[in-house]
Amino acid sequence: MSDSHTIAVDAMGGDNVPAVPVQGAVMAARRSGLRVLLIGDADAVAAELAKEDVTGLDIQVVPSEGVVNEGEHPVLALRSKPNCSIAVTAGLVKAGKADALVSMGSTGASMAASVLALGKFPGLDRPTLGGPFLSLAPNTTIIDLGANVDSKPSQLLSFGALGASFQRIYNKTENPRVALLSVGSEEGKGNRQVQEAHALFSASGLNFVGNVEGHELFQDKADVVVCDGFVGNVLLKFTEGLAEAAAQYLAKTLGPDSEAVQRIRGLAGAAEHAGGPLFGVNGVAVVGHGRSPAEGITAAIELAARCLDVGLVEQMQADLAKVLHKAGAEA
Amino acid sequence: MSDSHTIAVDAMGGDNVPAVPVQGAVMAARRSGLRVLLIGDADAVAAELAKEDVTGLDIQVVPSEGVVNEGEHPVLALRSKPNCSIAVTAGLVKAGKADALVSMGSTGASMAASVLALGKFPGLDRPTLGGPFLSLAPNTTIIDLGANVDSKPSQLLSFGALGASFQRIYNKTENPRVALLSVGSEEGKGNRQVQEAHALFSASGLNFVGNVEGHELFQDKADVVVCDGFVGNVLLKFTEGLAEAAAQYLAKTLGPDSEAVQRIRGLAGAAEHAGGPLFGVNGVAVVGHGRSPAEGITAAIELAARCLDVGLVEQMQADLAKVLHKAGAEA
Repeated sequence: MSDSHTIAVDAMGGDNVPAVPVQGAVMAARRSGLRVLLIGDADAVAAELAKEDVTGLDIQVVPSEGVVNEGEHPVLALRSKPNCSIAVTAGLVKAGKADALVSMGSTGASMAASVLALGKFPGLDRPTLGGPFLSLAPNTTIIDLGANVDSKPSQLLSFGALGASFQRIYNKTENPRVALLSVGSEEGKGNRQVQEAHALFSASGLNFVGNVEGHELFQDKADVVVCDGFVGNVLLKFTEGLAEAAAQYLAKTLGPDSEAVQRIRGLAGAAEHAGGPLFGVNGVAVVGHGRSPAEGITAAIELAARCLDVGLVEQMQADLAKVLHKAGAEA
Repeated sequence: MSDSHTIAVDAMGGDNVPAVPVQGAVMAARRSGLRVLLIGDADAVAAELAKEDVTGLDIQVVPSEGVVNEGEHPVLALRSKPNCSIAVTAGLVKAGKADALVSMGSTGASMAASVLALGKFPGLDRPTLGGPFLSLAPNTTIIDLGANVDSKPSQLLSFGALGASFQRIYNKTENPRVALLSVGSEEGKGNRQVQEAHALFSASGLNFVGNVEGHELFQDKADVVVCDGFVGNVLLKFTEGLAEAAAQYLAKTLGPDSEAVQRIRGLAGAAEHAGGPLFGVNGVAVVGHGRSPAEGITAAIELAARCLDVGLVEQMQADLAKVLHKAGAEA
C-alpha cells in the first residue's frame, strides 16, 4: 500500500471513544506509515495520544465540537451540529486535506455526512454498504447490510452493480455472479421487491444468476448477493449472535479454551469487526462497527488506503455508469 | 398423549416419497398407538408398507391422484387436481374421518388445502407458520417462517397474537414477551412495515417488549419474535446453511467425528427437521420440511396428536379473538 495517503479518522464515533480510535490510528500510522488526522474533542484526543508512543509518526489532531449519537436523526443532527466530529472529518476530505475518511458510527451519520460533503455517484439514488461478512463464505459480497431499508427494485439493481464492481476490484473476481436473496430459487418466488428486481437484473448486463436462498449463501452459488438492508442487517447481527451462542454452547461441554470454541468465536469476531467502504459516494469513506476494537480501526484505516491505491471510486463510478446506461436503454 | 386420535398423513409430500412418510407413519403408529391414514398413490404406498412390520398397527391407505409440486401455484394446482394427495388429506379432516393432518410440503399447497377444507379463524386475514427453530434459543417462537411475504402490519399483529398463544400453550410461558424483529431497538428503527406494526403492537394488549435485533434472538429478550415471512424464511434456511458450513469447517481441523462437529451438526438438524402446526386454520395441520427424515415425520405426527390433546386450536381462536377485539376497540 502507498504510504503517501492522509486518512481522516472520526475519533468520537463508536463505543469506547476516543481511546479506541486513537489506539487504532497509532497502530495504523506505525505499521503502514500513513498520515492520520484524528478528529474529535481536542483535549480528550490529546490525553489519549499522550498515553501512546508516537515518535516518528505523522498524526495530527483536528478539533471538532459535538457528536451525532446513535438514535439521532442523522441529517437533522448534522444540521444542528455543523462542527461535529463526522462533519469535520468528511469536510477534510472535501477540502482535499485528507484523501479518505474512516468512522465507526453511527452508520447513518457517517453516510449522511459523506454524501453531503462528497456527493453521490452520477445517477445513483442511494449509497450503500456491503461486503463479505461471513467467515464461512469469505469471498461472497452481501449488499446492502443496513444502510438502506424499503429499497426500490431499481435501488437493489444499483446495489448489485456496485457490489459486483467491488467484488471485481477487491476480490479479483472476473465477471462476478450476482444473485438476489429470496425464499425460493424460481423466478416467481420472493416478495414483490425481489420479484420486480428480478426483471431489472435480468436485463442489466450484470452476470445475473437468479435467486439464492438463505442456505445457499454457503454453497458458492454467487459472488454477490443482493438484499434489502433490513434483511442484510438482520443477517449480519444474527450471525454475530449465533456464533457467540454456539461458542458458549460448545464451551459448556468442551471447555472454554477448546480449539472448537476458539474457532467458532473467531467466526463471530469476523462479522463483528467487519468494516467496509461506503459504495456510491465520490470519495473513500470506510464505515465500521461501533463495537470495533483498536485492531478493527487499524484495519479500516489500512483498507481506506488500499481503496485509494486501487482507484476503487473511479472504477466503481465507471461500472455503475455502464449498468445505468444499459437500464436506461432498456427502459 | 391420547392414542385415540386419527392422523391423516400426506404420503406424497416431501423429497423422498412415499418411502419416508410411510416409515415415519409406521414409527408413530407403533410408538404412540395412533391411528394413521396414509394418503397417496395406493400401489406405491402399499409397496412401501409391505417392507414394514405393521403387525397390530392401525394404518390405512387412502388413495389419491396426483400431487402439487414445488413451484406450482398452490391454489391453481388444487383447482386442477382436486383429488391430489394434500386435497384428499385435508378433506379427510373436514369430513371428520381424521382429527388432524400432517404434510411435508409444499408449504404453500398444505396451507391452501388446509384453508380451503377447514377455514380460517374468524377475523383472520392469513394463517401463518411459526415455531422455535433455533436450537440455541429453543424456547423462542419465531413467526412467520415463510408462509406469508409482504405482510401488512395488521397481519404481523395476528402473527404476534397467534405466536404468543402457541408459546403459552406449547412452551407453558405465562404472558409471553412479544417483540418485533428489526434493525435497531428504538421505536423509530426499522422498515415501514415494522414501524407501523410497532404502534399496533403497543396498543394490542399483548406483552409487547419492543424491537429486538438479529443478535438479540439469542439473548432471551423475548419469547415470541415476529417478522415478515420473507425474513423468517431467509433466517431459517440461513441457520441450516451456517450450521452445516460450520460443521464442515470444524471437521477439517478437528476431524469429522469430533464431538464439536457432531454437536454443531445437531444444531443444523434441528432447524432442518422443524415442523409445526399451521396457525389460524380451524383444525390441526402440522406442516414440516420437505427434507425431513422419517424421524421428523414421526415427530410431526406425534406433535399433531399433542395439539389435539391440549385443544390448541380452540385456545388459539380465543386468544386471537381477544387481540382482534382490543384492536377493533382502539381503531
